Amino acid sequence: MTSEIISVGTELLLGSIINTDAAVLSERLASLGISCYRQTVVGDNEERLTEVLEEALKRVDIVFLSGGLGPTEDDLTKETVAKVMGLKLTEDAGSRKAIEEFFRKRGKTPTDNNWKQALVPEGAKVVENPEGTAPGIIVEKDGKRVILMPGPPNEFVPMLNNSITPYLREISDSVIYSQTVKICGVGESAVESAILDIIDNQDDPTVATYAKTGEVHIRVTSKAADEKTAKKTVKPVIKELKRRFGVYIYATDDDITLEQSIIDMLKVNDLTMTVAESCTGGMLASRLVGVPGASDVFKAGFITYSNKSKRKLLGVRGSTLDKFGAVSSKTAAEMAKGASSVAKAQVAVSITGIAGPDGGTDKKPVGLVYICCFLRGKSEVREYHFSGNRNKVRESAVAAALTLLRQTVLEDFSRKEFGDLSEK
Amino acid sequence: MTSEIISVGTELLLGSIINTDAAVLSERLASLGISCYRQTVVGDNEERLTEVLEEALKRVDIVFLSGGLGPTEDDLTKETVAKVMGLKLTEDAGSRKAIEEFFRKRGKTPTDNNWKQALVPEGAKVVENPEGTAPGIIVEKDGKRVILMPGPPNEFVPMLNNSITPYLREISDSVIYSQTVKICGVGESAVESAILDIIDNQDDPTVATYAKTGEVHIRVTSKAADEKTAKKTVKPVIKELKRRFGVYIYATDDDITLEQSIIDMLKVNDLTMTVAESCTGGMLASRLVGVPGASDVFKAGFITYSNKSKRKLLGVRGSTLDKFGAVSSKTAAEMAKGASSVAKAQVAVSITGIAGPDGGTDKKPVGLVYICCFLRGKSEVREYHFSGNRNKVRESAVAAALTLLRQTVLEDFSRKEFGDLSEK
Repeated sequence: MTSEIISVGTELLLGSIINTDAAVLSERLASLGISCYRQTVVGDNEERLTEVLEEALKRVDIVFLSGGLGPTEDDLTKETVAKVMGLKLTEDAGSRKAIEEFFRKRGKTPTDNNWKQALVPEGAKVVENPEGTAPGIIVEKDGKRVILMPGPPNEFVPMLNNSITPYLREISDSVIYSQTVKICGVGESAVESAILDIIDNQDDPTVATYAKTGEVHIRVTSKAADEKTAKKTVKPVIKELKRRFGVYIYATDDDITLEQSIIDMLKVNDLTMTVAESCTGGMLASRLVGVPGASDVFKAGFITYSNKSKRKLLGVRGSTLDKFGAVSSKTAAEMAKGASSVAKAQVAVSITGIAGPDGGTDKKPVGLVYICCFLRGKSEVREYHFSGNRNKVRESAVAAALTLLRQTVLEDFSRKEFGDLSEK
Repeated sequence: MTSEIISVGTELLLGSIINTDAAVLSERLASLGISCYRQTVVGDNEERLTEVLEEALKRVDIVFLSGGLGPTEDDLTKETVAKVMGLKLTEDAGSRKAIEEFFRKRGKTPTDNNWKQALVPEGAKVVENPEGTAPGIIVEKDGKRVILMPGPPNEFVPMLNNSITPYLREISDSVIYSQTVKICGVGESAVESAILDIIDNQDDPTVATYAKTGEVHIRVTSKAADEKTAKKTVKPVIKELKRRFGVYIYATDDDITLEQSIIDMLKVNDLTMTVAESCTGGMLASRLVGVPGASDVFKAGFITYSNKSKRKLLGVRGSTLDKFGAVSSKTAAEMAKGASSVAKAQVAVSITGIAGPDGGTDKKPVGLVYICCFLRGKSEVREYHFSGNRNKVRESAVAAALTLLRQTVLEDFSRKEFGDLSEK
């Protein structure tokens, strides 16, 4: 089964936003064994969209379109698809209800142009969009399929996961089974060289690595006539990867994030935690609190951006700040210890660093970050040197903090040794 | 002058990497007044690349290609371009020297396949690549231009800035000038209805709205022979938008974010601020601290996720929590007031709500959020009902908190009245 992706949006052609939808969808299609030959971006322009869509329909079985489903005048993806497919637009009662509901919940009233979003091509499958007012649409005609999804990633991704992926699995002529091994604390190149032999000899299952900030994911995929066969092909490779990466693997489940695995681990071990953040300013806490049920583990956190707040809220000694500076292993250690005692949490993670663009010196350059994990009187402090802009440095620091937190708690309980691959 | 971008790379079609090159180049082209009608991604496949390139050359004046210039077998962009343009590949002495130099500097020796990178189509302009071994290539033939650049962003971006942009400026026949009006506190549909007349009658300048979480951006764009003319066309529309949206506009500068505008506003007014976050768990603080120089304004913040931490860290009364609950306007007000006094900051913003997926009741459903902005003894509390998953609710709450913070500080200083468009 072959496909192409058409992303619609003048803001994409102007470079105002980056096309993450296409990457997410392509990755999904690969995992489903649906070949994707092209990604195309066009503006909100009926003539050019028509041209691109007609070409694509000649080449492949499925054409995905994202964007241009909004309520505004220049959103014309749906209208263009209907024209090209020779279908009338008719109002979908369910979508109209969903739009009413959407606004009612938020104590607002829809404006006239919102109702435009309830129109769908006749005979189309309507895919609900709990995150927004534009429903997804699946049109099947003359052996071709056109699938429309909203552009905003916070609507696109849930719809892809909850509705489109199951649909694609159903129509796919073969079963694809894939499992992801999620690794933290090992760099991408180290991971790749550790499995070079597997990658070089891959055929079925296929093995692909994906680098995320502070993480590497290895996806093992097999395509077969039935799921049982595919699973049987994937299983031994997963087993081998577990043998090679051991404790560095935090999950083998697509839905588990690093922060989720940490919250679960702390919950199992009846530990509560807190954070003390300087340069990351709440970013670490925000990721942890993003996990449903985090409240069982995470009670409170401190954002101590100024020296004064480090002293007043966490009891960091003035002499420490004077002698070693706010960005130092000593300060990191006192921040974590202080946070632990003030919040009465057994585990505390602190981050202090120079995110830039200013504030760097020869001795303490932009990107220098100290992270401490305090656990029952024991402090583990590490020094990091991250590159990139202010935000990249902060994201890298948060990822490193989560990894250090996980390793500290793991070591505390499993007494497992971390091997050569460790980035210590 | 018209153009298209072709990004070559199977890793893009597999979703292993995100196509940032296309976004960076598109933004540059827009600023140079070179219309970009399409971005296309194809794999390292000679047949399909040939097809895409031939199509593009029929449609536009300039075709940009990035990727597939590496030393390996499957890098075939240059070879394909040469074939399509009917040109032989000949070795470029300068490129060969550059490759030797590149390896010498790194104490390495080139492998045979590296010399492949010194081959260029006969008569092509060679663009040096200090960051790597693949030179950029500009082919001019039969009134068409084909521009090849290496795929890795750390090579692509410097080459675009240092060599390609100056070249394009020389050959460009027009200028595009665009300005963005950034609005908060008004929904997309309301913005759209408020400027329907402008959008309906748009020609030059063009007017487009972009919805972000809690914000709407209106981009006004004009294309003209020179910048002066383009600016003159855009100016009156910007002026009219300012008249219609008034204080809801937080910036008319592409580089200013909502949090940046707030930090600046507080700085100007010599105000310091703090936050007390429950369900957003540091997300609000993280956005504020993301602004370079936030430290002048933002000293400390509190993540009080548990009732106990609300009492202990912020002095919220137990009776308030018992009687009204953690998610209530009373609790929000006491959180903000407490944070202000503990952090000794004049302004404090608090957020308490139910982000879900669990914890909702009939009286207090998932999505219910109370936000308070405390400023010099005065508290402004608002109740919100957000939809979407846990993360969307939290992002919406943060956006609303920033908007309320901005409005409160503005009202405090400008005594401006907010009109009908307000989401109060």
